[in-house]
Amino acid sequence: MSRETALPELRQLRSSIDNIDAALVYLLSERFKCTKRVGALKAEHDLPASDPAREKEQIARLRTLAHDADLDPEFAEKFLTFIITEVIRHHIEAKSA
Amino acid sequence: MSRETALPELRQLRSSIDNIDAALVYLLSERFKCTKRVGALKAEHDLPASDPAREKEQIARLRTLAHDADLDPEFAEKFLTFIITEVIRHHIEAKSA
Repeated sequence: MSRETALPELRQLRSSIDNIDAALVYLLSERFKCTKRVGALKAEHDLPASDPAREKEQIARLRTLAHDADLDPEFAEKFLTFIITEVIRHHIEAKSA
Repeated sequence: MSRETALPELRQLRSSIDNIDAALVYLLSERFKCTKRVGALKAEHDLPASDPAREKEQIARLRTLAHDADLDPEFAEKFLTFIITEVIRHHIEAKSA
């Protein structure tokens, strides 16, 4: 393949990456809406803020999904941890607000 | 709201979170398919592996999208950096394979 055909393909791929990124941003926003409500419910009813059993289930489920989707399960777990860290930061900020 | 009404709502929210997480996993897998092909194209045509101008554009675009989606732009930027770090890891692994 010549460089002349490579560049349009690169542009096409980048356009797909940009579309996927937009979808990811909107989904993440929706996810944080859910966790915000979870945080409020837990605070209102004196439910424990963290739930290690639920978290363990989420990790196991996500690893299976990742495997089925041909995504590295290690990465899927790192990704969930990254998101949960942000959720905890939101909860702490909400408490101190 | 009583604890009896809070628990079903919590279950519902968790079910939505699980659905969103599945969508995120499948989208991430699709995104890595694109970046894998980008990596191969770049290697094949001796194009530079990193493209700071493109990355800067991606960050600016994602921050705007995050703002529109009511997501913290700082988080959106951290998220993109997290993903790009994984993409670079893939490229390094592909080169040493």
